[in-house]
Amino acid sequence: MSDTSILDRLRAANRTAAFNDMIGFEVTQADEGRVELQLEWRDDFKQYAGFLHASLIAGMIDTACGFAASTMSGGMVMASHFSVNCLRPGAGERFIAQAEVVKPGRKQIFTRCELFAVQQGARKLIATGETLLVPV
Amino acid sequence: MSDTSILDRLRAANRTAAFNDMIGFEVTQADEGRVELQLEWRDDFKQYAGFLHASLIAGMIDTACGFAASTMSGGMVMASHFSVNCLRPGAGERFIAQAEVVKPGRKQIFTRCELFAVQQGARKLIATGETLLVPV
Amino acid sequence: MSDTSILDRLRAANRTAAFNDMIGFEVTQADEGRVELQLEWRDDFKQYAGFLHASLIAGMIDTACGFAASTMSGGMVMASHFSVNCLRPGAGERFIAQAEVVKPGRKQIFTRCELFAVQQGARKLIATGETLLVPV
Amino acid sequence: MSDTSILDRLRAANRTAAFNDMIGFEVTQADEGRVELQLEWRDDFKQYAGFLHASLIAGMIDTACGFAASTMSGGMVMASHFSVNCLRPGAGERFIAQAEVVKPGRKQIFTRCELFAVQQGARKLIATGETLLVPV
Repeated sequence: MSDTSILDRLRAANRTAAFNDMIGFEVTQADEGRVELQLEWRDDFKQYAGFLHASLIAGMIDTACGFAASTMSGGMVMASHFSVNCLRPGAGERFIAQAEVVKPGRKQIFTRCELFAVQQGARKLIATGETLLVPV
Repeated sequence: MSDTSILDRLRAANRTAAFNDMIGFEVTQADEGRVELQLEWRDDFKQYAGFLHASLIAGMIDTACGFAASTMSGGMVMASHFSVNCLRPGAGERFIAQAEVVKPGRKQIFTRCELFAVQQGARKLIATGETLLVPV
Repeated sequence: MSDTSILDRLRAANRTAAFNDMIGFEVTQADEGRVELQLEWRDDFKQYAGFLHASLIAGMIDTACGFAASTMSGGMVMASHFSVNCLRPGAGERFIAQAEVVKPGRKQIFTRCELFAVQQGARKLIATGETLLVPV
Repeated sequence: MSDTSILDRLRAANRTAAFNDMIGFEVTQADEGRVELQLEWRDDFKQYAGFLHASLIAGMIDTACGFAASTMSGGMVMASHFSVNCLRPGAGERFIAQAEVVKPGRKQIFTRCELFAVQQGARKLIATGETLLVPV
């Protein structure tokens, strides 16, 4: 149940980022203040122990938060601070980041995100994070 | 001026992580409690505005901090929390992360990191970050 | 709807901390993994602009998170990292912190908290925060 | 070796905050982009285990960072995010926070701080932290 005009706009924005394209981030849902981003597992995403690399944990959270903020900013946004809690190892066939705006603002937008792994049909929360963004 | 046995060990660890290999992280210096990681720019590292993607800013910081912690832990470490301050856009031909242990410990290791961009010979601080790690 | 044995234990713990007593923190609800802490406004809580001082914003969040963690740790806990987002100025007659455990663990307990101001009967979210705790 | 006009202005600002006065924060050094804040131990600062309460650890860091930012902003500043790493228990007769601006800016000011305890003449790093501020 996404707003299709928001979803279309974010999908277009997602394609303009070469890294998002190389890695395979997909915008799967979007609404005012809320965005879902998904990523299918590939073997070259492994950190040393075989789990999802911290780069991609942080990247999914930051990207989903940035997209969520952009639905309320009326323009481009830039992350100034983000943080990640690593709750469980990132093991799964697919990863789903669900971000939402906690408080919009003219100078700053506060967002937060939950990152789930889907493994054999079961969904597990593997990380939480937040991003503080500035409209530019 | 690195400790070559530490450097060799971290380079071997770096090669065991498929993501580090795909992206091209290089361990360039290492000593007890201090590690330097470098990355050469590639066009597929771009976020939407053409700068270094937040995934790689976070990933360099988290990886350098993890390696720094591992020089003092006597074994594997796992990040439980990390955060990043984005000070300037990531524009450069090369990126250098310098991490150090702030406080080692049996239960937790506190680390911090500075990330520089090198552009036409000039080095600029583009991000700072920190990672809290747990020996496993 | 609190578990009265947990509530009684936390109230006793709250009284053993001289700072909590001087400031007037009250444990108003408690259950496994969830704690509510309240504070009545006093004029000596002002920062320079007349709002609730950051010390007490952080202090309510950290204290509520620590109590929430202690309901699941079977013993003492110690904060290793905490962070606070300041969403709105802290203006009100009363402040309410609601903390919950996001993920318990033997080595680390992840918690989060929302801090509300009550002003003329209306409740407003003024800050969010999180605390990472270690059982000791 | 402080700039006395900056020091005088910050001391005056410090006295306008009722909480700072009640607790006893003292601005002991100040220069452009750098501020030192001190606090003398009192028994009513104790958390449950007898150490310096997290409210005051966070409060010293946030206050010192805010003052450091104000030396470069040409006006009032407001914290939007701050975080604290608790490295060691806060035991001492006196506490010293040393804050500095990492990157000033028109929209945001990044700062960081180290907090030391002084115990029988020896100085120990007990916490580190950072604050992101917005000029208002």
